Amino acid sequence: MSLPSRINNGYEDLKGFRLNLCDSKCTDLLIKMANDCMTHLANYKRISLVSHVEGKDYFSFYTSGKYSRPVLKDKWIEQETCFTQKLGTFGDAIKSNSYSAISSEEISTILYSIAINFCCIVDLEKSGDQKTPGTFFEYLIGHCFAMKLRANPCKEVDVLNLDRSTKLPTDFVFDLGKEKPKFHLPVKTSTRERVIQVWAHQRLLDGVYGTGRFWGTLACLAETKLDNKTKVVTEICLPDQWKLYQLFISQMKRIYYLDIPKKYEDLNNSFPKIPVKSVGEFFFEADDLTKFN
Amino acid sequence: MSLPSRINNGYEDLKGFRLNLCDSKCTDLLIKMANDCMTHLANYKRISLVSHVEGKDYFSFYTSGKYSRPVLKDKWIEQETCFTQKLGTFGDAIKSNSYSAISSEEISTILYSIAINFCCIVDLEKSGDQKTPGTFFEYLIGHCFAMKLRANPCKEVDVLNLDRSTKLPTDFVFDLGKEKPKFHLPVKTSTRERVIQVWAHQRLLDGVYGTGRFWGTLACLAETKLDNKTKVVTEICLPDQWKLYQLFISQMKRIYYLDIPKKYEDLNNSFPKIPVKSVGEFFFEADDLTKFN
Repeated sequence: MSLPSRINNGYEDLKGFRLNLCDSKCTDLLIKMANDCMTHLANYKRISLVSHVEGKDYFSFYTSGKYSRPVLKDKWIEQETCFTQKLGTFGDAIKSNSYSAISSEEISTILYSIAINFCCIVDLEKSGDQKTPGTFFEYLIGHCFAMKLRANPCKEVDVLNLDRSTKLPTDFVFDLGKEKPKFHLPVKTSTRERVIQVWAHQRLLDGVYGTGRFWGTLACLAETKLDNKTKVVTEICLPDQWKLYQLFISQMKRIYYLDIPKKYEDLNNSFPKIPVKSVGEFFFEADDLTKFN
Repeated sequence: MSLPSRINNGYEDLKGFRLNLCDSKCTDLLIKMANDCMTHLANYKRISLVSHVEGKDYFSFYTSGKYSRPVLKDKWIEQETCFTQKLGTFGDAIKSNSYSAISSEEISTILYSIAINFCCIVDLEKSGDQKTPGTFFEYLIGHCFAMKLRANPCKEVDVLNLDRSTKLPTDFVFDLGKEKPKFHLPVKTSTRERVIQVWAHQRLLDGVYGTGRFWGTLACLAETKLDNKTKVVTEICLPDQWKLYQLFISQMKRIYYLDIPKKYEDLNNSFPKIPVKSVGEFFFEADDLTKFN
């Protein structure tokens, strides 16, 4: 089982931008892939799911007995509602670093549609492949953040430690230069019990470079889970554990979601505060975040 | 695909000891399972593997086109060399909490054989099941440590935090009572990139209860990896990353292995010191560890 060849070629080309994500050619490629994915999705049926997530409705793409991961109806752009045109507006904003013609909400919706469409195609065309959706989502978010921050991310940092020098493999790290905070950007399609790694990596960076040198900003797609027997969608959230991590391991500056779980959004309003926002908001607060404050 | 029924019944019974691991009936059950597993293994071929691990030779059990995980020849007890009798001596030591008739090395060899035999049977009789071997190994180690410490472990701790109370799910935690250190015992068949979770959980316990209240002791089976095409065995080790975790996240008191990777054993002799030992040694140093020192 393999991806449709146009989409697979796009994915292979995308991996070529690994060390050069801050490149407008990567925007063009992602937009071409988004259009190819949308065209391919016409081959599938859409089937409504039973949502146990308050206030959110989900559907799956379906073909030959297989269901894709859940898609949030309100965030998903139909091809008929000017998908290609919306993509163009989004691409122009990313490439020009000018966001006057697009809203935070529109950015989140477009990014959600691009990401979930690719993931669903992998769900249906490949078997048990978690890596390809994760890598695509990482590159999509890495590219958009890189274009906004006008910096290429690294995937490792030097750890100088008196008598030794070690490379620490990390998620994306953006170095904006002297007198500016650096960004530590883990990217995950979902977090579950693995999320403690994010706070632990942040702790490590705090320890090595001093607390406050790196803003920890986690970007996630969703926390939905589909029960394959009952077709019920739930969200897997552990807000009490997040609070303990934020109190006792390290402090994340932002958690960005495309499909924000309500239980995590509520963390904005309790102690310890964990700022959980929609991914689109990053593009309107990045300039403030790049000052120390 | 499912486990042979005797072994499966044993595994189901074992799960019944979840909240009561410090029970000599659990020793008897584990020894019965170990004998059942050894009997069943006679159904498989044994095929030598190509070892790229210096100084260690490995084989796989093999049946109908499937290879089990690698088995370390020097640590594996043949049925013909008094396996049942050795198991009996081991069981008597565990139940009586008296280790004069058995050596640290013998304990490690027996525990290795019990664990790897069960894991190999799951590898060959089930498909893609990582959970069952992990659970069995967790119970095996949890039981032996519980019998030595004469305490039942918990799988969660209370976190009292001014205006809230939360349960924190943990690996095994042993509370030995007032004026004694508590033990935080994560158990893993292998660690790979997930190991940062262990240091992060330790950090959390240090933060909540104060540094030094919990000894962090990780118990692992092995770090071997079998390339299914070439039949080459390698060890996946990240000692430089462990050093960073030990320096900047928290301090583990012990790392116990059944098949100790040389690269991790070397951590005993460099800065920061991470004491990496054979599991058998626990039973001879536990009394010292249960004093604050």
